Amino acid sequence: MQRWKLIIEYDGRDYCGWQRQDEEPSVQQAIEEAITKFCQKKLLITGAGRTDAGVHARGQVCHFDLDYGERPLGGFALMKALNAHLRPAKIVIVAAEKVPHDFHARYHATNKLYHYRIVQRGAFVALERGLVWHFKKKLDVAAMQEGAKHLLGQHDFTTFRSINCQAKSPEKTLDRLEVSVRDYDDHGGHEILIAAQGRSFLHHQVRNIAGSLVLVGEHKWQPDDVKTALAAKDRTKGGPTAPAHGLYLMRVDYQS
Amino acid sequence: MQRWKLIIEYDGRDYCGWQRQDEEPSVQQAIEEAITKFCQKKLLITGAGRTDAGVHARGQVCHFDLDYGERPLGGFALMKALNAHLRPAKIVIVAAEKVPHDFHARYHATNKLYHYRIVQRGAFVALERGLVWHFKKKLDVAAMQEGAKHLLGQHDFTTFRSINCQAKSPEKTLDRLEVSVRDYDDHGGHEILIAAQGRSFLHHQVRNIAGSLVLVGEHKWQPDDVKTALAAKDRTKGGPTAPAHGLYLMRVDYQS
Repeated sequence: MQRWKLIIEYDGRDYCGWQRQDEEPSVQQAIEEAITKFCQKKLLITGAGRTDAGVHARGQVCHFDLDYGERPLGGFALMKALNAHLRPAKIVIVAAEKVPHDFHARYHATNKLYHYRIVQRGAFVALERGLVWHFKKKLDVAAMQEGAKHLLGQHDFTTFRSINCQAKSPEKTLDRLEVSVRDYDDHGGHEILIAAQGRSFLHHQVRNIAGSLVLVGEHKWQPDDVKTALAAKDRTKGGPTAPAHGLYLMRVDYQS
Repeated sequence: MQRWKLIIEYDGRDYCGWQRQDEEPSVQQAIEEAITKFCQKKLLITGAGRTDAGVHARGQVCHFDLDYGERPLGGFALMKALNAHLRPAKIVIVAAEKVPHDFHARYHATNKLYHYRIVQRGAFVALERGLVWHFKKKLDVAAMQEGAKHLLGQHDFTTFRSINCQAKSPEKTLDRLEVSVRDYDDHGGHEILIAAQGRSFLHHQVRNIAGSLVLVGEHKWQPDDVKTALAAKDRTKGGPTAPAHGLYLMRVDYQS
């Protein structure tokens, strides 16, 4: 029995999220079915974490155990075979590698990086529709950067936590929360990128932070209001949940 | 009567190209229909140039004349109205501006910029499927850069011209042809960008150049073979036509 680690890219729009559901297609189910087609066995995979319906991934991670008998099997061959079975789904195995039998995609993750992409311009988005959050009104990026500073470090993030969150504690540590901006087109359009990094996150944490920082960008909140909201430890004091389709799980890191 | 200039972004996959066709939906037709819905008049628009089926644009340009009576109409209002009529098409007016009555989107263009995007990795592409050319085999970017140099400047580009090209002369001047590379993912995937700039281009010129440079990247051609192919002035000596969906018309410039 060999434990394998997969790194996965997917377009979240076609799925009810990572996690298997009874009625709707999930990313987990699609990958499990591809593995079954490859090895003729039913098995379950364990993801580094759930992503919601519509959320994308560039570097989701999962693990599973595969009994492939005595035949040799390399990572590139497994990746190729699973991708062939996944088509035409917009889910791709970017890398497959052998890991020790005690490797755990969720429990052993030491770091996760999320990106939240906002395109701010008057015109809507043609080429990347569904891949970014389109926001019409001007955003003050300097104010958003100022507001973000209040969330760095270890805090009780109840204000930015979904009321459905099942984590035992609302205490999390944000190691990085950066707001950057670049031109999106030659006509005044901007892409604003929020990069959030930490060991683990609460349900909707990044989307709720993004929604609150956008309030700051619109000048509906002052940067210091982020601090006040955080201190309130009350979800009703936080900003709205930003749409799922702007969020990307970029990578999950493990101690090597 | 006011002449207007539009700057347009579109996803080429849903269309038979820019140019109106009898049987198939074109970008031109979609925009003309949006204008008709806005002003209740039938009219024709003139594009800076055609793009083929599947080719994308970030900055296509067209012009048209609009009689809007005595009522005031600003660029932002026109852009908003046309975009509302274009939805849910993946065509967006990024900017609308008034231009002098003798402005011509095609004849007065002084510069065009095309990008050709290649994603080179073993795994196919989930998130940007149809927005890049996925190429599985490794490409030697330094060799592609070397080969590209032979095409800079004024040449007879017959070797890189579609046999259906209707231009009077195969002589064109390439002011810029740059091949650059960046990481596409954390697992060895690369994005190779070919940027081609000049006053005007022959039919399929950028795609045929991209197809030939990829032969160099694969080591099927030496960089100097590009020079030999160019000198042959014979389409059968050129590389294959790269797929439409990697190509973007990025911008069209005019003397201000």
